[in-house]
Amino acid sequence: MAHRILVLNGPNLNMLGTREPQTYGAQTLADVEKLTVEHGASLGLEVTCKQSNHEGELVTLIQQALGSAEAIIINPGAYSHTSVAIHDALRAVALPVVEVHLSNIHAREAFRHHSYVSPVALGVICGLGSTGYKLALSALAEKL
Amino acid sequence: MAHRILVLNGPNLNMLGTREPQTYGAQTLADVEKLTVEHGASLGLEVTCKQSNHEGELVTLIQQALGSAEAIIINPGAYSHTSVAIHDALRAVALPVVEVHLSNIHAREAFRHHSYVSPVALGVICGLGSTGYKLALSALAEKL
Amino acid sequence: MAHRILVLNGPNLNMLGTREPQTYGAQTLADVEKLTVEHGASLGLEVTCKQSNHEGELVTLIQQALGSAEAIIINPGAYSHTSVAIHDALRAVALPVVEVHLSNIHAREAFRHHSYVSPVALGVICGLGSTGYKLALSALAEKL
Amino acid sequence: MAHRILVLNGPNLNMLGTREPQTYGAQTLADVEKLTVEHGASLGLEVTCKQSNHEGELVTLIQQALGSAEAIIINPGAYSHTSVAIHDALRAVALPVVEVHLSNIHAREAFRHHSYVSPVALGVICGLGSTGYKLALSALAEKL
Amino acid sequence: MAHRILVLNGPNLNMLGTREPQTYGAQTLADVEKLTVEHGASLGLEVTCKQSNHEGELVTLIQQALGSAEAIIINPGAYSHTSVAIHDALRAVALPVVEVHLSNIHAREAFRHHSYVSPVALGVICGLGSTGYKLALSALAEKL
Amino acid sequence: MAHRILVLNGPNLNMLGTREPQTYGAQTLADVEKLTVEHGASLGLEVTCKQSNHEGELVTLIQQALGSAEAIIINPGAYSHTSVAIHDALRAVALPVVEVHLSNIHAREAFRHHSYVSPVALGVICGLGSTGYKLALSALAEKL
Amino acid sequence: MAHRILVLNGPNLNMLGTREPQTYGAQTLADVEKLTVEHGASLGLEVTCKQSNHEGELVTLIQQALGSAEAIIINPGAYSHTSVAIHDALRAVALPVVEVHLSNIHAREAFRHHSYVSPVALGVICGLGSTGYKLALSALAEKL
Amino acid sequence: MAHRILVLNGPNLNMLGTREPQTYGAQTLADVEKLTVEHGASLGLEVTCKQSNHEGELVTLIQQALGSAEAIIINPGAYSHTSVAIHDALRAVALPVVEVHLSNIHAREAFRHHSYVSPVALGVICGLGSTGYKLALSALAEKL
Amino acid sequence: MAHRILVLNGPNLNMLGTREPQTYGAQTLADVEKLTVEHGASLGLEVTCKQSNHEGELVTLIQQALGSAEAIIINPGAYSHTSVAIHDALRAVALPVVEVHLSNIHAREAFRHHSYVSPVALGVICGLGSTGYKLALSALAEKL
Amino acid sequence: MAHRILVLNGPNLNMLGTREPQTYGAQTLADVEKLTVEHGASLGLEVTCKQSNHEGELVTLIQQALGSAEAIIINPGAYSHTSVAIHDALRAVALPVVEVHLSNIHAREAFRHHSYVSPVALGVICGLGSTGYKLALSALAEKL
Amino acid sequence: MAHRILVLNGPNLNMLGTREPQTYGAQTLADVEKLTVEHGASLGLEVTCKQSNHEGELVTLIQQALGSAEAIIINPGAYSHTSVAIHDALRAVALPVVEVHLSNIHAREAFRHHSYVSPVALGVICGLGSTGYKLALSALAEKL
Amino acid sequence: MAHRILVLNGPNLNMLGTREPQTYGAQTLADVEKLTVEHGASLGLEVTCKQSNHEGELVTLIQQALGSAEAIIINPGAYSHTSVAIHDALRAVALPVVEVHLSNIHAREAFRHHSYVSPVALGVICGLGSTGYKLALSALAEKL
Repeated sequence: MAHRILVLNGPNLNMLGTREPQTYGAQTLADVEKLTVEHGASLGLEVTCKQSNHEGELVTLIQQALGSAEAIIINPGAYSHTSVAIHDALRAVALPVVEVHLSNIHAREAFRHHSYVSPVALGVICGLGSTGYKLALSALAEKL
Repeated sequence: MAHRILVLNGPNLNMLGTREPQTYGAQTLADVEKLTVEHGASLGLEVTCKQSNHEGELVTLIQQALGSAEAIIINPGAYSHTSVAIHDALRAVALPVVEVHLSNIHAREAFRHHSYVSPVALGVICGLGSTGYKLALSALAEKL
Repeated sequence: MAHRILVLNGPNLNMLGTREPQTYGAQTLADVEKLTVEHGASLGLEVTCKQSNHEGELVTLIQQALGSAEAIIINPGAYSHTSVAIHDALRAVALPVVEVHLSNIHAREAFRHHSYVSPVALGVICGLGSTGYKLALSALAEKL
Repeated sequence: MAHRILVLNGPNLNMLGTREPQTYGAQTLADVEKLTVEHGASLGLEVTCKQSNHEGELVTLIQQALGSAEAIIINPGAYSHTSVAIHDALRAVALPVVEVHLSNIHAREAFRHHSYVSPVALGVICGLGSTGYKLALSALAEKL
Repeated sequence: MAHRILVLNGPNLNMLGTREPQTYGAQTLADVEKLTVEHGASLGLEVTCKQSNHEGELVTLIQQALGSAEAIIINPGAYSHTSVAIHDALRAVALPVVEVHLSNIHAREAFRHHSYVSPVALGVICGLGSTGYKLALSALAEKL
Repeated sequence: MAHRILVLNGPNLNMLGTREPQTYGAQTLADVEKLTVEHGASLGLEVTCKQSNHEGELVTLIQQALGSAEAIIINPGAYSHTSVAIHDALRAVALPVVEVHLSNIHAREAFRHHSYVSPVALGVICGLGSTGYKLALSALAEKL
Repeated sequence: MAHRILVLNGPNLNMLGTREPQTYGAQTLADVEKLTVEHGASLGLEVTCKQSNHEGELVTLIQQALGSAEAIIINPGAYSHTSVAIHDALRAVALPVVEVHLSNIHAREAFRHHSYVSPVALGVICGLGSTGYKLALSALAEKL
Repeated sequence: MAHRILVLNGPNLNMLGTREPQTYGAQTLADVEKLTVEHGASLGLEVTCKQSNHEGELVTLIQQALGSAEAIIINPGAYSHTSVAIHDALRAVALPVVEVHLSNIHAREAFRHHSYVSPVALGVICGLGSTGYKLALSALAEKL
Repeated sequence: MAHRILVLNGPNLNMLGTREPQTYGAQTLADVEKLTVEHGASLGLEVTCKQSNHEGELVTLIQQALGSAEAIIINPGAYSHTSVAIHDALRAVALPVVEVHLSNIHAREAFRHHSYVSPVALGVICGLGSTGYKLALSALAEKL
Repeated sequence: MAHRILVLNGPNLNMLGTREPQTYGAQTLADVEKLTVEHGASLGLEVTCKQSNHEGELVTLIQQALGSAEAIIINPGAYSHTSVAIHDALRAVALPVVEVHLSNIHAREAFRHHSYVSPVALGVICGLGSTGYKLALSALAEKL
Repeated sequence: MAHRILVLNGPNLNMLGTREPQTYGAQTLADVEKLTVEHGASLGLEVTCKQSNHEGELVTLIQQALGSAEAIIINPGAYSHTSVAIHDALRAVALPVVEVHLSNIHAREAFRHHSYVSPVALGVICGLGSTGYKLALSALAEKL
Repeated sequence: MAHRILVLNGPNLNMLGTREPQTYGAQTLADVEKLTVEHGASLGLEVTCKQSNHEGELVTLIQQALGSAEAIIINPGAYSHTSVAIHDALRAVALPVVEVHLSNIHAREAFRHHSYVSPVALGVICGLGSTGYKLALSALAEKL
């Protein structure tokens, strides 16, 4: 049976394509999710994508992954830098996590250099645009 | 046609009139919104007021301003000091923003001196009570 | 008439029993709430328990305590360390507050050593597991 | 009798129109002072404008406001960030003060984010260009 | 046989009742010790109380607990914030420790927010006045 | 013609397989380089691998990439955290760079959280073991 | 011949008696200077008093002390905390200096805790009101 | 009846005359105490001098001043920089306190620039050698 | 026609020759200005020298350079480390600036290591004594 | 005549053998002192060993070394990190000092990385267990 | 006999002309060295130029200057900000050193503002391009 | 068979005897190595000494110790304070390490107080001159 992967996108990622295209690219979130699901399928992975602007909703979605997914790919957006609650949720479910950022957060403002998610992730991929989600799937396909 | 302005109030501003009146005054949020809408009308501006205690809801309301408003007046309340997500939402919609605080945040606790919203605002008005919203409207009326 | 106490639990506390049992114990949230209500009853206190993963929901629940409770016991979970909004809500309602943490936050990562809730609490109890809620009720029973 | 307002401008504001017009606009200080006096008159306020490049002179002008003005509008320019002496002078005269900055100091270099004047001001307006002086007058007209 | 508990009070706690009663209450140390011993007895615990103004004496008293007590309740007073020696003594004897503070140290000066004792304590109770000692005994009664 | 990629490994990576296998895995550097070259070939990329313990040698190798490679994949090892010289060399040659770390540097000591290389990289991949080199090649294959 | 002492007062000290009397007392600067000159005379010292709101003027007055005074008593007011220029002037003239503050600067805001003048002074007296000037004269009378 | 003053000297001040005479002078503690008592007598003050190397002993001596002295002069020596316990003891007895240091602590190592005693003192005198004790007595004679 | 250069010296540089000759050398300011003017003449530059102890006066002199000089050489003395106003004035006139210090500020106290002038200067020369002014002129002669 | 060496052990070292044997070894303090005295004798040194849990007692013992010992070996235990008083005592007696720690303090918690004793010691030996005392004696035997 | 000067260039300076020409200019290192040698000759100085990308090689070259040169001009490039080893080597040879930077390091990233070389240099010249080397030679010609 | 010990000296230690003899003594490196080898022989240890100015070379020498030595004594010189690469190499080979410094690094500049080598060393000896190497050998002789 195919491994199930939850792909979670955080606040403002629903604005992809509209929001600062020079930083985040011209693809919409739907485009990115489609590419990601297809790449997952090609690797034999069953990918489900969700997005929320709410920190609490993301916490709940992570909790619900317990039993419905074997791994999580998360782009926590702005909550990367401020959310201990998401850190705790990921630690609570104890699934393998790959953190993805579209932009290179280390080349931006200082307040984006630290992520509360990174210490509880297996690995982190940033700066490689929507390709990052595909790489995360490839990495998980090797681990699982 | 009248310019449309979205006035957003953040967490606990629904408690106005009840909450620490020596700091925030005796007017309720309804009072302040009424005054603001009327002042906007007197300047030929169509003002819509919304309030939420949810960071994610404020992010969504900012995103929805795209196409429904020409400018935003925001009092982010406590989220001023902690929300990168609201910062990002405001940057994503790229509308002119005036940040308003009822109290003078620079005369209060150190953790209130920094606002993540200020760097993406056109201007900031603080410490002038509910008059601040009217001044913000006057300023936008000049710019638009 | 019995004093009414609101017991609020923050993000990920709905995972109790599942989440890192070596840190948080094997009891579920329902177990803990049951024990707490019963201990309250034995002290002549009427205890209502609520939990939310949403910072904004916790803010709203605190606001609604005004008129429906005489005191609040809160375990803000991860929001302890990041939420100015909850700090403000507690200050706005001006009820006596006891902050409870299951684990000893001072023996964990540095980012858990500071709580925005503590300065607006009457007292703080941490590291004593679910017993902490009972102690908080005992303390409030003496004060009220 | 009309309320008297002292409008004080600090170092380099005499260069307005010449200095970095992309940041500070094309109006000269004379233009701004004329607009400000006229706006004051329209509100029934008698406005006097002064400028100095000297920290000590600004201290003296503030001291002399005692008895000759009912409120002060001050744009302390660079001294905002370095002058405890101006802070002390404003505290000594204990008149209502509105601090104005033409540019949004929170969107510039870190050393411009802190102002020694803000904690002793009633309110602060920044980033709204010369309109800021007019808004400050409107706010004072409401308070006085 | 009854469990033996050592209750240690640090510097200036011998001034209770005299010292800043608005912060520390009107009870003397003798009053508090009496209440504590009685509450212990009601829980089947044999409580011994000691106080010292000397850091070195507190270190020695902790060392002597080895073999004469099964747990320690300590209010280290000002040494909470400065004593690595007490931290080391508590770690050396490796008994369960509950740290108690009469006042809410997190609502006071910044230098009182950190305690060297907390990381080696089982739990911490602060801000609940002399009730704190009783709660600490109740907690230990459950654990032992 | 195939795109040429330079894969650079920094200090102590020649110890792979020997050095802390629980952190870095059991593969030797030769194993990793072989896998990387083969994966590159499968993507139509011509991969050259080099390793040095010398900061100055790494600087020289980066300089020599100008004209002999179209992109660089670099695992700067310990020099990530201390070398401005490598940062400058990468900026000087202005080729696309992907930074790779075998371990998740954000889950280790604080001095490993900052990399001087990241701000001049296109993207960063960490924590995914030797798979990281393959992902970096896949990402470059998409970009070139 | 009598030793000559220069007594220098910095910004806002000309407001004494008017400015925050609860902090600085009810005496005017003229009162304080009269007391100081008289106390000096009683010790056989010839005292000259000067005050300026200008940092540059204070620098010049210190420079002119060379040859006209054997020691300096200085209350640098707000410039204590910000003026390297006064520090340098005092070091340049290399006369014995006693620094005086009317209020206890260590019991006030953090930005008043550091003085650039202290490291180049012989001694510092603070918090003892206008008595401080008399004590400074007594100390200099012993040294000279 | 003469006012009674307690003069307390902290650790290593019993070494005066022996310890680093270039910093602390050639007088022994007995010399300094004799001078101080005589100067007190000339002002109608009854002076008692005590010295201890023990922080806890200094705390106890301060507590015992309650009822046996009207004011305290304290040179806390090294404990100035590290003792919250002495700070608390002085606050508990709430007597007027003058802090004295023989050397100018602001011209020495950075760790000597901060004193926990200063915020609870009426005033501070430093750098004026044993004269400092006499000045402190003169100041107290004026206040009492 | 000869290029005109304004040479500005800040506070205490009028003390040259008198002030700490082991640090600043035995030449007076007049000597240094004479050498500088002569060296300028030898390079075909018309040099005007001014000195002030007043920050505000230096701001004004910089403003007046607009139209009367093609470049500025400035030794801001102590104001280097504290004056945002001089920084702003130099940025406002936008002339090429060379900053000169007689002593090597990086080998002195930490508070002299940062200069607000450096970021707006073309270049900085320090530690080379009065030769520094001549080198600055040579550099400007090459640029102009 | 044999050189006399004072060996001082600070707080909790009387717990050796009992306290955390995995960190401090199984030898008791008596064992270590016996070894040290014997090793001293083998080098022709007369060694006296003392231990105290009191900072003030350690200060006094150091002072008494003046005239009774030619050098001091000190393991200040926890007071290393907090005691300016011991630093001052060692500086006052000006004897050669070797600081010894049983464990490697640089491999432990950050608050153990700084020692106030080290800057006044001739040398420091840490992490080598009870052998450290013997090495310290050997070093002193070479110097004396 | 001509004074011999060693001119040392650090990492990436061999890339001059290629590397970021908008920051570092279009001249190659060979061009700059030729100009420098010629300017030296015109001043009667015998100039030898060396470059290395290796920190250790620069250390060795500095050591070898002992006996083969009377002064050193060094542009340490990126090692300015990170190399204590070069600092130590310069201090060991104790020759006069002038530090040169092509760009104005104080107008760039914060990590370039501090140089370990500056405190051991006679003087520092930055921001004046290749002219800086000529000025350094002129300065040394005056000193030697 | 004799235990083999590698003694590594870092940058500038080849300058011993020449470099700042008041800090480092008059012995050359050859002298120190001879003494060390002889002392090792007397303890039955086979000592090999190497020195390099190159960080990368030191990394390589440490790696090569695997199989050719049972323990390492290292004086990393300036690289102590800056080299994560040497830290990693020592961790990779996992041999017992004693770190030696000739001078007392804790009594020197602040940037010498931290060593990246210390946390991976068994023990640290500093300030005891060349005797330190002998003590390190004695300590290793006891352990091995």
